[in-house]
Amino acid sequence: MDINAIKKKLKESLSEARYIHSINVMEEAVKLAVHYNADAEKARIAGILHDCAKNMGKEEEEKLLKKYGIVTDDIQKRSHALIHSMLGMYIARDEYGIDDEEILNAIYWHTTGRAGMSLLEKIIFIADYIEPGRDFDAAEKIRKHAYEDLDKCVLMCADSTIMYLIERGKLIHPYTLETRNDAILTLIRKGVYQLYLYTDENK
Amino acid sequence: MDINAIKKKLKESLSEARYIHSINVMEEAVKLAVHYNADAEKARIAGILHDCAKNMGKEEEEKLLKKYGIVTDDIQKRSHALIHSMLGMYIARDEYGIDDEEILNAIYWHTTGRAGMSLLEKIIFIADYIEPGRDFDAAEKIRKHAYEDLDKCVLMCADSTIMYLIERGKLIHPYTLETRNDAILTLIRKGVYQLYLYTDENK
Repeated sequence: MDINAIKKKLKESLSEARYIHSINVMEEAVKLAVHYNADAEKARIAGILHDCAKNMGKEEEEKLLKKYGIVTDDIQKRSHALIHSMLGMYIARDEYGIDDEEILNAIYWHTTGRAGMSLLEKIIFIADYIEPGRDFDAAEKIRKHAYEDLDKCVLMCADSTIMYLIERGKLIHPYTLETRNDAILTLIRKGVYQLYLYTDENK
Repeated sequence: MDINAIKKKLKESLSEARYIHSINVMEEAVKLAVHYNADAEKARIAGILHDCAKNMGKEEEEKLLKKYGIVTDDIQKRSHALIHSMLGMYIARDEYGIDDEEILNAIYWHTTGRAGMSLLEKIIFIADYIEPGRDFDAAEKIRKHAYEDLDKCVLMCADSTIMYLIERGKLIHPYTLETRNDAILTLIRKGVYQLYLYTDENK
């Protein structure tokens, strides 16, 4: 399926706002890919399709979870935000004919991230946060660093998600924390982050 | 070793501020134990000894980690706050003669908590946060709920720790997140918490 056919099909299955967001993420992802020497075509496809399973009702979600034999944990089963990324991978594969593992993984992991993300996964994870339609404070702040250091942005996105969920009393998936900790450890390895060891923490 | 001998020995190995904190945690833990029908004597011992490995230098810590064959993960090895609870269990056992598993576990888990904490573990985890010497905003807020619902307080303590660590750019141990999520799931099971499922989260 070429990009125009994908767009046409996607437009029919998403709300207008969600479709506009998808176009924005696609454009942001392509810009990031060009900047960081990633595959811009893969970024385009993963960007446009990342939310392809977003506008689904609970019943349809449950039918598809069953169809694909997806076992959800205590946190996933309570969160549409977590389920739509997992299902998105299957929808992209079966409804849009995407067979590239890198693209499929970028869709699968776009909500939580994970430790050891690929460059493409980081790009989609961040593009989803900072596309121009996102107008919350954290997006504004992260946008400023997006073309400096991807790992720093991954950390900022994960921090922002964790605080958002805490403020609302929602469950936080361990993958999100792993994404955050891994970003810090990556920045330490790159020599651009300093942890303050053995200071007295009077928590 | 009786409580007076414990106090005497502890006073010699902790800073004055840390010793006062330990006494405060002990008193708070006993009050919570009485309120929630836990074993007040175990709460007393776990409370006074929870920080028994707190005032150690890095060298001594490393010697003891080796002695006890403790393997630290990427996050533990970078945090005195995490290491002192693990070592505290061994010090309580070997230097203070404590052989009660419940007390030893309450010391071991007092910094991060864990999923499925015992009543005593919850009491020490919370007492450490809300003893009268703690004067930060979160402690004040949590104190108000301490005698209403322990699981709610566990959640508030874990949330507060996570936000504290995010603000300072520090690593967050997965156990802390597990403590938080488990507290929410426990509150759901008790019927006193409502998650908003399947609402549109425009993260």
